[in-house]
Amino acid sequence: MPHKPLILITNDDGYEARGLAALVEAAKDFGEVIVITPDGPRSGMGHAITMNLPLRVKHYKTKNGIEFYRTNGTSVDCVKLGQRVLLQDRKIDLVLSGINHGSNSSVSIIYSGTMAAAIEACFEGLPAIGFSLLDYSSKADFSTAIVFAKQIIDRVMKERLPKHVCLNVNIPKLQLAEIKGIKITRQTLGYWHEDLEEHTDPFGGKYYWLAGFLVNLEKEAIDTCEWALQNGYVSVTPVHFDMTSHHTIVQLKHWEHD
Amino acid sequence: MPHKPLILITNDDGYEARGLAALVEAAKDFGEVIVITPDGPRSGMGHAITMNLPLRVKHYKTKNGIEFYRTNGTSVDCVKLGQRVLLQDRKIDLVLSGINHGSNSSVSIIYSGTMAAAIEACFEGLPAIGFSLLDYSSKADFSTAIVFAKQIIDRVMKERLPKHVCLNVNIPKLQLAEIKGIKITRQTLGYWHEDLEEHTDPFGGKYYWLAGFLVNLEKEAIDTCEWALQNGYVSVTPVHFDMTSHHTIVQLKHWEHD
Repeated sequence: MPHKPLILITNDDGYEARGLAALVEAAKDFGEVIVITPDGPRSGMGHAITMNLPLRVKHYKTKNGIEFYRTNGTSVDCVKLGQRVLLQDRKIDLVLSGINHGSNSSVSIIYSGTMAAAIEACFEGLPAIGFSLLDYSSKADFSTAIVFAKQIIDRVMKERLPKHVCLNVNIPKLQLAEIKGIKITRQTLGYWHEDLEEHTDPFGGKYYWLAGFLVNLEKEAIDTCEWALQNGYVSVTPVHFDMTSHHTIVQLKHWEHD
Repeated sequence: MPHKPLILITNDDGYEARGLAALVEAAKDFGEVIVITPDGPRSGMGHAITMNLPLRVKHYKTKNGIEFYRTNGTSVDCVKLGQRVLLQDRKIDLVLSGINHGSNSSVSIIYSGTMAAAIEACFEGLPAIGFSLLDYSSKADFSTAIVFAKQIIDRVMKERLPKHVCLNVNIPKLQLAEIKGIKITRQTLGYWHEDLEEHTDPFGGKYYWLAGFLVNLEKEAIDTCEWALQNGYVSVTPVHFDMTSHHTIVQLKHWEHD
């Protein structure tokens, strides 16, 4: 009997998110699927892990032969718990995260719990893909996203990814017929500019809400994720986790001797 | 009158950490210093931001002319609050984070709130340095770390860093005389292997603690942060935030046309 691929699915929007159901729908025919997600939204948690609280895992449903678990931890904790506790170090063939409600293009990748889960898997050399739809609505239409998720899962299963590389897939908020195709892109240089909104509570205390917008620092470039998304393409960015600025090493080398 | 550099200091160990006092000590003579930190430990929070809770900032002391603030947010929130709310978009000349109690070498950079603050500053092109001492103890001796922090702050002030590059500085737990010097290094390829410890609560419920160790995947390499630290050097890794695996782009390019 041929090996049935083992697929771990997680997200950062929590177990009730429609994007999770969409990803399970996209992945279910590719192998044996197991789902473990946070028990509520964990957006913007970046690569957070739970060190100061005990982690709990709860089985909450079985549907079409797929087991669903939820935890009080983050999306990164889900990968660790899935691998070590639920699957007890069985070999995982693919880790999928998402489908996120909202874009993870440009520098958002670094704030994203969706991508953090994919990157966590990638640390140990597991193939991993994070999917995001450019629609923050809890009622977003994932039908186009499911089509592309299937296509990309199929490619990764057949071609494999280089070790320690995962994918950041962002899908425009468009009907299937409006999408022009896939672009392999690089992360757009940019940052979130926050206008911290000041409010006053009933007791006179001031507080702030983070609210901002993405500043694209390379609007002219045509090989970036932002360009692809704004021009009707699904953006696929290959991602690694080497944060070294290699070309700066030479520049600083004299510090060793001065 | 010459411009007095404006220095923002934060950390992820919270306002009471001795490493914070050490960093203030190292930085105080280089310019006008302002301190904003979390109101308690935020280790392992990665690049988390606070989106679902209102952020509060409180002034809690003035010491030697330096204003100290604390917030319910993360280290990344501190950079945003410092820049937008406390300093009202005044030009910041340097962001310093730490001194962390514990190493942020290798892949720990991605879990680290200390480095997340430095990277956040770097997004907008502010020069930034994260400092970490290889001693988790709350009573760690920061005297050696202060000497190197001063030296590195001085160099960065004089030579500047390339735009969108920050530094990850890790300092061994050694006496000053035992340190061999500075090495400019790259991030060691590695991952944290977790043995999730299983416990049982008084009600029979199972829970887990994250507990693990760093697996160094390139023990033979001599240009890495891990090698430098194990051989008695202060490790200085230049860091950027482009997560693109550029060499994989070519490999996947055919997906655009198939």
